Amino acid sequence: MSTKIYDRVALIGLGLIASSMFWAIRRAGLADEVTGYARSRATRDTARRIGLCDRVCDSAAEAVEGADLVVLCVPVGAMEQVARDIAPALKPGATVTDVGSVKRAVIEAVAPHLPDGVHFVPAHPLAGTEHSGPESGFAELFDNRWCLLVPVENSDDDAVARLTALWEGIGSNVEIMDADHHDLVLAVTSHAPHLIAYTMVGVADDLRRVTDSEVIKFSAAGFRDFTRIAASDPTMWRDVFLNNKDATLEILGRFTEELFALQRAIRIGDGDHLHAYFTRTRAIRRGIIEAGQDTDAPDFGRAKSVR
Amino acid sequence: MSTKIYDRVALIGLGLIASSMFWAIRRAGLADEVTGYARSRATRDTARRIGLCDRVCDSAAEAVEGADLVVLCVPVGAMEQVARDIAPALKPGATVTDVGSVKRAVIEAVAPHLPDGVHFVPAHPLAGTEHSGPESGFAELFDNRWCLLVPVENSDDDAVARLTALWEGIGSNVEIMDADHHDLVLAVTSHAPHLIAYTMVGVADDLRRVTDSEVIKFSAAGFRDFTRIAASDPTMWRDVFLNNKDATLEILGRFTEELFALQRAIRIGDGDHLHAYFTRTRAIRRGIIEAGQDTDAPDFGRAKSVR
Repeated sequence: MSTKIYDRVALIGLGLIASSMFWAIRRAGLADEVTGYARSRATRDTARRIGLCDRVCDSAAEAVEGADLVVLCVPVGAMEQVARDIAPALKPGATVTDVGSVKRAVIEAVAPHLPDGVHFVPAHPLAGTEHSGPESGFAELFDNRWCLLVPVENSDDDAVARLTALWEGIGSNVEIMDADHHDLVLAVTSHAPHLIAYTMVGVADDLRRVTDSEVIKFSAAGFRDFTRIAASDPTMWRDVFLNNKDATLEILGRFTEELFALQRAIRIGDGDHLHAYFTRTRAIRRGIIEAGQDTDAPDFGRAKSVR
Repeated sequence: MSTKIYDRVALIGLGLIASSMFWAIRRAGLADEVTGYARSRATRDTARRIGLCDRVCDSAAEAVEGADLVVLCVPVGAMEQVARDIAPALKPGATVTDVGSVKRAVIEAVAPHLPDGVHFVPAHPLAGTEHSGPESGFAELFDNRWCLLVPVENSDDDAVARLTALWEGIGSNVEIMDADHHDLVLAVTSHAPHLIAYTMVGVADDLRRVTDSEVIKFSAAGFRDFTRIAASDPTMWRDVFLNNKDATLEILGRFTEELFALQRAIRIGDGDHLHAYFTRTRAIRRGIIEAGQDTDAPDFGRAKSVR
């Protein structure tokens, strides 16, 4: 059952998110044609070789020509330049959206450059892996994940409705959110956790009395999950932190406060404080399982038990 | 191909680790009989109902009678009392081992109570899930994971060799390590990461401007992995922190130092510092994949791509 939503979609930037969008759009028949552009020639060559996009263009302007929907899939720090590059080539009535992990900064970087008659509807799909590049995408990445739409002042209702339909066709659940609230929620659920994971992995690497091979061999109980997070794309994450500075620093400040309280409980041997804290956090996990955002399988998808 | 190593094994404490050991011992035919004991009547009833252990006993002393190997699978804080309880009933020549996440404190708690002629060989299998209790175990938990043996002064060579064979039969790779070094390595790879994950989940729960349902719904990008870690057994983890205090506090001190340096880089907009740090941590992840301690599957075991 094909349900076309756009005649032509242009993907600017061809990494994990764009390539997954392409496979998901094709899976559901959501567009007649998907064009693509990446700044690096190597990425464009790879995209052509693996059939990523119906047509890979050698400039962003060429890729967006005649497109009804343009999706900016570049790191947040590169959004402004891309907006400048494509602005003259945008079709009147087209919708421009993005997939950036911060929204206020992207709106400030992109909106001023878009011509009148072009609709801007910022978005952020909450999905990813620690892999990057055009070959890392897969159609199921967004299945049952949330995509947050963050309409700006005067965002066109029809443009929002169509983009909603696209993301639902891709497999996501869509929710509308204000830009500043988005940036705070993501600071809590994603940005601060990423910085913390990066930090812990860096500490382990620095500790001279524990060898790297020991860290790697004995990572199974806890540290391994941190390394997966801390393997995410460095450029993307640099840009996230620089562009969601205030909310991230606020959350990290609260985090440090709590961490100090727990450290103190360890130092003075206050087991009741620790036990009560750990019992409370366990309930949050239960909520996530019930909300269907993770699996409760006891073996995390490893081989089934023989008993 | 059955390769019996012990005539009778006694499991004291019937949670995730003990129940997984039972299924793995049975899978490989490593013992003729496995007895079990848990302090709680409800746990013993559950164990009898699901066939966990060949015989569930109503006292620890009864369970260890005639056993060639006794495995203490209780929280670290409960080890000393269990050692007192079983000491009079231990068979001469038997080996006592444990599965606690800290080793120096367990050695100090258990060794003084064991009678002469009983061999003590502390151990720590590096495997787990966030689930606990007698029904959470599965035979594959230890497959291709490390088990660290931490012999004490005068540990009997034959007892160490036999316990090594048991853990290899269960599916693990075995390595010998000194108790203090074990406690430092685990502080880095497990204890500090757990405390950090608990802290971050607690912070999210406290933040009044972001609702619990938002935290839960939008957990996919980073936070979800923290909640899994932070859902681990509160009693076990309280005891770990109280009994590996010095190493954990040392690592947390270094962590805070690094975190402050990264926070400062965000505040002053030092993108180069962030990018260099994130690039370095990515390499550690590659090492873990190559060491076979995690999967590199781009979809984390979710449905296969249709392309």
